[in-house]
Amino acid sequence: MVETFRNYLTAGGTFTAAELEQLEAAATPRHLKRREQLLRKGEVCHSIAFVVRGCLRLYRTDEAGEEHVLRFAVENWWINDAESFRTGLPAQGTIDALEDTHVLLWAHEDWERLKRDIPAFYTLDSYLAGRNFEAQINRVYAAQSFPAEVRYQAFVKAFPAFYQRIPLHMIASYLGISRKTLSRVRKHPDAL
Amino acid sequence: MVETFRNYLTAGGTFTAAELEQLEAAATPRHLKRREQLLRKGEVCHSIAFVVRGCLRLYRTDEAGEEHVLRFAVENWWINDAESFRTGLPAQGTIDALEDTHVLLWAHEDWERLKRDIPAFYTLDSYLAGRNFEAQINRVYAAQSFPAEVRYQAFVKAFPAFYQRIPLHMIASYLGISRKTLSRVRKHPDAL
Repeated sequence: MVETFRNYLTAGGTFTAAELEQLEAAATPRHLKRREQLLRKGEVCHSIAFVVRGCLRLYRTDEAGEEHVLRFAVENWWINDAESFRTGLPAQGTIDALEDTHVLLWAHEDWERLKRDIPAFYTLDSYLAGRNFEAQINRVYAAQSFPAEVRYQAFVKAFPAFYQRIPLHMIASYLGISRKTLSRVRKHPDAL
Repeated sequence: MVETFRNYLTAGGTFTAAELEQLEAAATPRHLKRREQLLRKGEVCHSIAFVVRGCLRLYRTDEAGEEHVLRFAVENWWINDAESFRTGLPAQGTIDALEDTHVLLWAHEDWERLKRDIPAFYTLDSYLAGRNFEAQINRVYAAQSFPAEVRYQAFVKAFPAFYQRIPLHMIASYLGISRKTLSRVRKHPDAL
């Protein structure tokens, strides 16, 4: 299980063998069954998860009870409720598994310690934070600039694996597309 | 001009006098007239700006020529085209001044050097990256969950200073609200 994480880190080539061992020693493996929750809204998000196998989503539920998907995470992706993880305040989001999923978990205090002890890990953390921000800016721009249908088709093309693994209504929720639009797009995919 | 920046940093209380001097020595002050551009789409974003006084916006122009506002920055805020600043590739965004504006600029190579040399500055940079990400996630969630009118009113309440300083059509663009909706909201503000 740790092998996937090791491959992920060594692809960057910046970690010594001792550092890899230190990072891995602090990780707790966990297996989630499909639909099992890793984090519930209102709990504090104490851990950050690296997905070894499977698929998770982060979503929030609005006052009307509707779920809005904020992020997906598949193999080699990280996921947490970032604000709760940083502040220690209750999470607004829920994280659950869309498939049987294996994750590695790092507790907040270990994560902070590892960032202090391993400069390359601090750099990785900063890099991920920056990339995450840029990805959200691009998502906001797409939502401002392109019709729902175009965004849906672009997502399906960019992430064909997601399209096969993630229920369509969740992809639509992630993209902020209504069920009505989704059903129209699926009936007439060539009409775009 | 540097005074504002110094106050901003010392509010956190983590920088030594020598570090503050080192940070300030690397900064270049610049004055922008209203409507002057700090960065043009297609240029590389070589600098990050700290707003001492005034107001800037980052926007992208779509294929139809329409401008979409991605960020605003007023006093004590940072702004750049993050992806271009990180990668050195041409920027997708343009940054211009909405008022006469004073900024302090740090070149990318100086910014990286200061992060390496001053741990507290690295921490600040990571903190900002994390906060920026969380802010965008909240913005995506609001766009998914709340009608345009509600988001508009919430923005005006949360940032009354912005409401007075920034043209309404730019706030609407930032929120992804159409001109039609904007004009309806302004005519009947109590109808919400």
